[in-house]
Amino acid sequence: MTRDEALALDAADPLARFHDAFALPDGVIYLDGNSLGPPPRAVHDRLTEVSRRQWGEGLVRSWNTADWIGAPTRVGDKIAQRIGADPGEVTVADSTTVNLFKLAAGACSLRPGRTTILSEAGNFPTDLYAVQGLGALLEDRVRLKTVAPDELLDAIDEDTAAVILTQVHYKTSRRWDLAAVTAAAHAKGALMLWDLCHSVGAIAVDLNGAQADLAVGCSYKYLNGGPGAPAFLFVAKRHQGAIRSPLTGWMGHAEPFAFEDGYRACADIRGQITGTPPILGLAALEAGLDLQLQAVPTLVEAKGLALAELFIAEAQARAADPSLVLTGPREAAARGLHVSFAHPQGYALVQAMMARGIIGDFRSPDIARFGFSPLFLSYAQVWDAAETLADVLATRAWDRPEFHQRAAVT
Amino acid sequence: MTRDEALALDAADPLARFHDAFALPDGVIYLDGNSLGPPPRAVHDRLTEVSRRQWGEGLVRSWNTADWIGAPTRVGDKIAQRIGADPGEVTVADSTTVNLFKLAAGACSLRPGRTTILSEAGNFPTDLYAVQGLGALLEDRVRLKTVAPDELLDAIDEDTAAVILTQVHYKTSRRWDLAAVTAAAHAKGALMLWDLCHSVGAIAVDLNGAQADLAVGCSYKYLNGGPGAPAFLFVAKRHQGAIRSPLTGWMGHAEPFAFEDGYRACADIRGQITGTPPILGLAALEAGLDLQLQAVPTLVEAKGLALAELFIAEAQARAADPSLVLTGPREAAARGLHVSFAHPQGYALVQAMMARGIIGDFRSPDIARFGFSPLFLSYAQVWDAAETLADVLATRAWDRPEFHQRAAVT
Repeated sequence: MTRDEALALDAADPLARFHDAFALPDGVIYLDGNSLGPPPRAVHDRLTEVSRRQWGEGLVRSWNTADWIGAPTRVGDKIAQRIGADPGEVTVADSTTVNLFKLAAGACSLRPGRTTILSEAGNFPTDLYAVQGLGALLEDRVRLKTVAPDELLDAIDEDTAAVILTQVHYKTSRRWDLAAVTAAAHAKGALMLWDLCHSVGAIAVDLNGAQADLAVGCSYKYLNGGPGAPAFLFVAKRHQGAIRSPLTGWMGHAEPFAFEDGYRACADIRGQITGTPPILGLAALEAGLDLQLQAVPTLVEAKGLALAELFIAEAQARAADPSLVLTGPREAAARGLHVSFAHPQGYALVQAMMARGIIGDFRSPDIARFGFSPLFLSYAQVWDAAETLADVLATRAWDRPEFHQRAAVT
Repeated sequence: MTRDEALALDAADPLARFHDAFALPDGVIYLDGNSLGPPPRAVHDRLTEVSRRQWGEGLVRSWNTADWIGAPTRVGDKIAQRIGADPGEVTVADSTTVNLFKLAAGACSLRPGRTTILSEAGNFPTDLYAVQGLGALLEDRVRLKTVAPDELLDAIDEDTAAVILTQVHYKTSRRWDLAAVTAAAHAKGALMLWDLCHSVGAIAVDLNGAQADLAVGCSYKYLNGGPGAPAFLFVAKRHQGAIRSPLTGWMGHAEPFAFEDGYRACADIRGQITGTPPILGLAALEAGLDLQLQAVPTLVEAKGLALAELFIAEAQARAADPSLVLTGPREAAARGLHVSFAHPQGYALVQAMMARGIIGDFRSPDIARFGFSPLFLSYAQVWDAAETLADVLATRAWDRPEFHQRAAVT
């Protein structure tokens, strides 16, 4: 592809109108929206509104007058629109980790007697850790079992309480078939808990179409909710009356302001809320969502996959370095919106790219990862990034001492 | 006391210089800083800095360059200065509810074989609910036991894994003796877990002086951290190597960015962190703390108690309504910084006060509660508030239909 051809794609891009909704720094091509999405312009004013007017002037009254109390489910309902869930099936709450713990325990409460929670080896660590912690607390009455991805479907059995998978793998970008895996779990009587961290706002997700049971996800990637933005969780309506959350807090009580000594769970999705909702984080997230909801999910997915395809093709066509190896599947339909290359100098490679304004990230031990958020990236930017990658490799630009000094967060 | 005498107290108030650090709305006397502290002026610019510069320009790089990754323990170390803890003993994490769950489970891990967690009936609900949820998950291997406050010390026994108490009661304002109760727990081999929600930033707390084991607290009251600001927890150094958190997430791992499949807990306080830290909430909280740390804790407590004393004395002297009954202890040393009156029309009374610009809050079933945050309130304001309360009672100003319509959040 020539750069002019990339520019022609931009001219015809139905999502190009979203570029102006972001104000990225000059000279930066941001290929890390899959780690931390950039702020929509509107988020700054939204935060000022919440901080100065709602908090500063409304004070405690804003729990009612600004409907802070309704924010977790109001914002949850907006997320629901992007993951194929119905109103009342999603709430914002806690972190992805804490939500995994709640729903893993909840799945066990729905499948008493079953002792295994199944996942894949190499899943995002927190998904595995959350279940390991639950198992340790329960003295191995429930245990995490991990198997290689290609053994996963066969490993589901009558002892499996739940299968937990990240739909799009954080490292390889490999995508699980939501409907097929859910059906395989159900065939053995197991529940399916999807981690949508790398899906939501990126690819078209249809939880109810797949009859999924449970899901979690973060909001700071493709939803542009801000650093450490609050996470969300989904419980299918059919499970809401029966599922038990182990994290019972006052905001999940049927009547929080009755201040009773005994816990009575709210029977709807609010029973999964624990403590006081994080209003500043919710406000930033809602601004990101309000933008996201203006875009058509199938167009978002298609553009993201096309950008990733462009990057892979152009990088492989130009890069003379045979040690740059694509990890994960080559075909677009089997991937999410990020692309990972293994390279012996992966860390330094990412640093050298950053020094030229191309921001990606590194994942241990040797992965250079680049994400293709469809709302703010152009085809021409991705073309430029691929050319830069080829040049960095050809000139061994990564071979400078400062690019090998590891920061705290890699 | 005359109003001129109140003004004289203001003129001599060593904390009066803090009033200008807040911008409260005209016509408002804010007696609800014990529920949601108002924003310090500096918080708005801090949020703008984080939102526009760190997030918008620094993007994902700010995890290193703005030390977002260090924020939970950096801010935790600042909180430590207000609760008698050492550096490295406090981290910001999750909500109070989730932290209670973690530390209650952690206490059980430190006291294997003991099956009771003891608290007082009528403690803040989330403290009770968190333990009830833990007990249900553990199928009653651990159980919450609640007793009347005056029976509590005698109820501690060799089966008690931990005693959980809120130092200052959310409703009555009654204050437990931190050192004496901790010693009583230790005498039976139990651990002491303090909830400092109504203490931190209000009264002088010395956890290590009392040899306390564990503590939690929220930061949106007297620390002015913002609505739903992230909570904190304390684990005494001597317990950090041994305590097990049940909520094991990637941010509590010894090497989060090694992305290992197996959880290895960080041996220091960071082992209690679960998911990605909430940066916007942490930023607002840090601004509140930076202000708080300029005030001398003993002066803060003394002024708050004096304001509360002024309000009680003036209200009782002026209020002809015998159905207004102070709940909790009368003597200042036995209270925290809020004052609760029971009144048959408690809800409408609070609404009528709010209509006159005096913001307090209601607690079911009949409590009108008023808080006396020392950094932004003046003696003259409290004198005015007491006069208004007397007038509202004398004129039955609460007796209007609109004051009886309950909002979602009461």
